[in-house]
Amino acid sequence: MVAPQRAHFDAPLRLRCGSILPAYDLVYETYGELNAAGTNAVLVCHALSGSHHVAGVYGDDPRSVGWWDNLVGPGKPLDTRKFFVVGVNNLGGCYGSTGPMSVNPATGRPWGADFPVVTVEDWVAAQGRLADHLGIQQWAAVIGGSLGGMQALQWTLEFPERIRHALVIASAPKLTAQNIAFNDVARQAILTDPDFHGGHYYEHGVVPARGLRLARMIGHITYLSDDQMAEKFGRRQRGDKLKFSYDVDFEIESYLRYQGDKFAGFFDANTYLITTKALDYFDPAGDYGGDLAAALARARAAFLLVSFTTDWRFAPERSREMVFALVHNRRDVSYAEIESSAGHDSFLLDDPHYHAVVGAYFDGIKV
Amino acid sequence: MVAPQRAHFDAPLRLRCGSILPAYDLVYETYGELNAAGTNAVLVCHALSGSHHVAGVYGDDPRSVGWWDNLVGPGKPLDTRKFFVVGVNNLGGCYGSTGPMSVNPATGRPWGADFPVVTVEDWVAAQGRLADHLGIQQWAAVIGGSLGGMQALQWTLEFPERIRHALVIASAPKLTAQNIAFNDVARQAILTDPDFHGGHYYEHGVVPARGLRLARMIGHITYLSDDQMAEKFGRRQRGDKLKFSYDVDFEIESYLRYQGDKFAGFFDANTYLITTKALDYFDPAGDYGGDLAAALARARAAFLLVSFTTDWRFAPERSREMVFALVHNRRDVSYAEIESSAGHDSFLLDDPHYHAVVGAYFDGIKV
Repeated sequence: MVAPQRAHFDAPLRLRCGSILPAYDLVYETYGELNAAGTNAVLVCHALSGSHHVAGVYGDDPRSVGWWDNLVGPGKPLDTRKFFVVGVNNLGGCYGSTGPMSVNPATGRPWGADFPVVTVEDWVAAQGRLADHLGIQQWAAVIGGSLGGMQALQWTLEFPERIRHALVIASAPKLTAQNIAFNDVARQAILTDPDFHGGHYYEHGVVPARGLRLARMIGHITYLSDDQMAEKFGRRQRGDKLKFSYDVDFEIESYLRYQGDKFAGFFDANTYLITTKALDYFDPAGDYGGDLAAALARARAAFLLVSFTTDWRFAPERSREMVFALVHNRRDVSYAEIESSAGHDSFLLDDPHYHAVVGAYFDGIKV
Repeated sequence: MVAPQRAHFDAPLRLRCGSILPAYDLVYETYGELNAAGTNAVLVCHALSGSHHVAGVYGDDPRSVGWWDNLVGPGKPLDTRKFFVVGVNNLGGCYGSTGPMSVNPATGRPWGADFPVVTVEDWVAAQGRLADHLGIQQWAAVIGGSLGGMQALQWTLEFPERIRHALVIASAPKLTAQNIAFNDVARQAILTDPDFHGGHYYEHGVVPARGLRLARMIGHITYLSDDQMAEKFGRRQRGDKLKFSYDVDFEIESYLRYQGDKFAGFFDANTYLITTKALDYFDPAGDYGGDLAAALARARAAFLLVSFTTDWRFAPERSREMVFALVHNRRDVSYAEIESSAGHDSFLLDDPHYHAVVGAYFDGIKV
């Protein structure tokens, strides 16, 4: 059983876009105990739809299991008997940290689409302040999957002395054109939904559910592998006969529509927009003429990278790019390419080889 | 210079869905001359967004080049000095053949979404009647790419004696779950557009342009390869600086939005819906417990199959499935797997190896 906590920050935060956030809150959770030397802290960074609620359950809702509960807990690969684990909802989020649903002090109304487009760099800067707040001078490790992995990588660049290990899982050093394309279609679905109201839908008492639903359906296709979709759904029909209408004929349609509807019922569309831009913009090699090895030269951490064979959103090749760039810099790098049929979503599942690799890596971290 | 023609059919057509179309028109074009023996006719079947306008230009618009003009014409791989070539707009289409925009004789108003969901089988049945109308007892060949290739395959099953050669290009014997998933997201974008009005948008003086635009953007991602998107667009930005807004940052966004807008300006949404269902439903092995070899046993034609290495919509593996099933039946099968970076769209491009293969195959057809 865990409970979220809230930290308020009064020092203005200059964002990459140039705007200044005068003050903000971060909602976070912790698991385990910080040791006296403060050397056993691990930060878990969330991906597109994740939150600070990484592990455990809330007292009033036994179904409220954290999104990475299979990895984080007592006796689990990230063992909370050894480590003090912190989960945080990022700026711009919709789970309690300052974001589009918060009140804009300049107007007294929700920020809506006026909330600045925050980036991975901004998130890491804010996470740095949370570390200060918690009395953590240096993380034993920062871990994340997908967009979370980008934050772990960014930690090694923005605060090289404050992170000993980075675990970058199912991630990439930047998006491809195809990745950006999928994100932009998802954004266009939201932006063109008549209920979006230029991002100020809160005031209209509606949400752009149609657009958010489509965005999630598109996303889901890219999270699963072709193989796994074939295994799980194939051409299995709902009912004996084809309907010759636009109702559900195939189980895959039912699954995707259900996932889309569910997501549209709780996630904030402005947060979705911001988060996809954070993904698009992340490109640490951008300032180095595309030379990733040069970009990563200032990293001091040791690295574990993990990829999954059927992940076509961030394929193993994308992890290998980072491995090569780190090896070029003579960093301490471990890399595991896990056989898995589950595509990008593999990083959230409890594949035994994957968990064994991550567990062994954490076992080897001295605290 | 060509001009479309129109054939009216009064004999009722029983569709696979059970409905009966009492009468219908097919719009078609022809190129070259039918020889006296009637042995040199080739039918070209179109894919999702194609039409009867396969080759040549219309007199009043020099930009109106047919969609497969690089393949079809005098001296081209499908040489109209040798062959009499026929292009036809399929039933349910939006280029003049009877479809959702036509008047429903039962109501005196446009069919709209009440137009029956037609299938590949229905299209081939209607094309058979067009062949009768044109005095073509047997096609020298039927050719198509993608969904057009499915029609060529279906011809060999529905009218085994009326087709001597089938050219099945960048196609598949059925859709995968992932293929269906992309189609259903596209459909949901259209169906949930408030301007769709249950498919009767014509009467409201609007079109579901937002939905159709999204559908086309999604489609386009699957038509191009990841490699080609990287080559053509990569992360190239429009303008020097990131915008930190939802305007275009990257060229790939501009390209996709442009393609979506253009398509939404001329294509009919109901036709798009019908056509994606025709794709989803095509599965000749379905009645044979999934045994494609059993399903293709009744084919008598010789086959050329062509696939493209970077096509991930209908990957080479999908063509090989058909090749194996045909070889199992000791059919005359040729197969070419073309190295191309252009993904599924390769079938529309004039890659020299591809055109050489198709040209040589047509050269070898006796008329």
